[in-house]
Amino acid sequence: MTDDNLTEQQKLHKKKMQKQKEKVDASIAAAKIERGVAILLTGNGKGKTSSAMGMALRAIGYGQKVGIIQFIKGAQNSGEIDYLTEHCPSVDIKRMGTGFTWNTQDKEADIKASEDTWAHAAAMLADERYDLVILDELTYMLGYKYLDKSTVIEAIKQRPREQSVVVTGRGGGSELRDAMDTVSEVKDIFHAYKSGIKARKGVDY
Amino acid sequence: MTDDNLTEQQKLHKKKMQKQKEKVDASIAAAKIERGVAILLTGNGKGKTSSAMGMALRAIGYGQKVGIIQFIKGAQNSGEIDYLTEHCPSVDIKRMGTGFTWNTQDKEADIKASEDTWAHAAAMLADERYDLVILDELTYMLGYKYLDKSTVIEAIKQRPREQSVVVTGRGGGSELRDAMDTVSEVKDIFHAYKSGIKARKGVDY
Repeated sequence: MTDDNLTEQQKLHKKKMQKQKEKVDASIAAAKIERGVAILLTGNGKGKTSSAMGMALRAIGYGQKVGIIQFIKGAQNSGEIDYLTEHCPSVDIKRMGTGFTWNTQDKEADIKASEDTWAHAAAMLADERYDLVILDELTYMLGYKYLDKSTVIEAIKQRPREQSVVVTGRGGGSELRDAMDTVSEVKDIFHAYKSGIKARKGVDY
Repeated sequence: MTDDNLTEQQKLHKKKMQKQKEKVDASIAAAKIERGVAILLTGNGKGKTSSAMGMALRAIGYGQKVGIIQFIKGAQNSGEIDYLTEHCPSVDIKRMGTGFTWNTQDKEADIKASEDTWAHAAAMLADERYDLVILDELTYMLGYKYLDKSTVIEAIKQRPREQSVVVTGRGGGSELRDAMDTVSEVKDIFHAYKSGIKARKGVDY
């Protein structure tokens, strides 16, 4: 279609779209550094772990090597972990497996468990075979002071240049944020359980 | 460990954790309605599509039937779509495939493409075999008025009771929000490309 055949409104639309395209193209062209990124998914809303798992799927789709460490989680059912365990043996998964600390109520045991789990994370962050390392709910370990903050941040900073890392969880502190390339905050505008709707298999877990 | 062997600090910690557990248990117990949920993942931050894809993986892990409709997307590479297409033939995927509208700059063609794509979405939303239907970037179709808002909202509301639906994209309008059970807003705190880092395969696409 040549411009001559367009109505004034269509021309206006085309012009607007061209301008938007130029803007997007310019910001993409300006970004030239190629290296792995550190991403923090934080906030109180639904979708932090799901988002990390979506990135895992994305990376697996390109044949990349993925490592997943789940702090806290481990006692509950998890459709995505079930799937990856069964169908993607090349994905390395370590779950802390003690459940939430408010289920154990034993601080010494929690510290021990988080340190043991961290050892797996540290090994992945030092291993350049991993293209993507997911540290699910790591922030709580820092919030509770179960793990040493500077040890964790250093390990993230010192990881192989091509490796990307995704950290999820509320909070985490400003020093962790400062070590990140991307920070996304997921905010609950409203949530189904507040209307009395039960957590849903395949959606919430 | 009995309480007698705990230090004062440990007792305090245990008490705090117990209180937190009671609070969480109470809100979970209060949620009794079992049905599919409608979720909107919105906002300008990274992680909306990833999050939807993580839920797809979750549902697939339980052997649930998933349908994915991608508005706008289709021209770009996508690790997650590559994976699902190759390894999960039971997942039904339809991508609009015209690329972003600022790449086509032809409004009539965009409307036609969005209507054709919507027909697939409408069929899934009327089909109780689907446990989870993902409508990726649907909001833009409403924002551009390429699709009729009330038609879309009615189809979401009238879907089978056990079916969950996830809509992603910025904006979408208050009527769409009102039709949802859960709304999460993903906010960019900062993003790697602003520091000149290129979009990353396996992370961003």
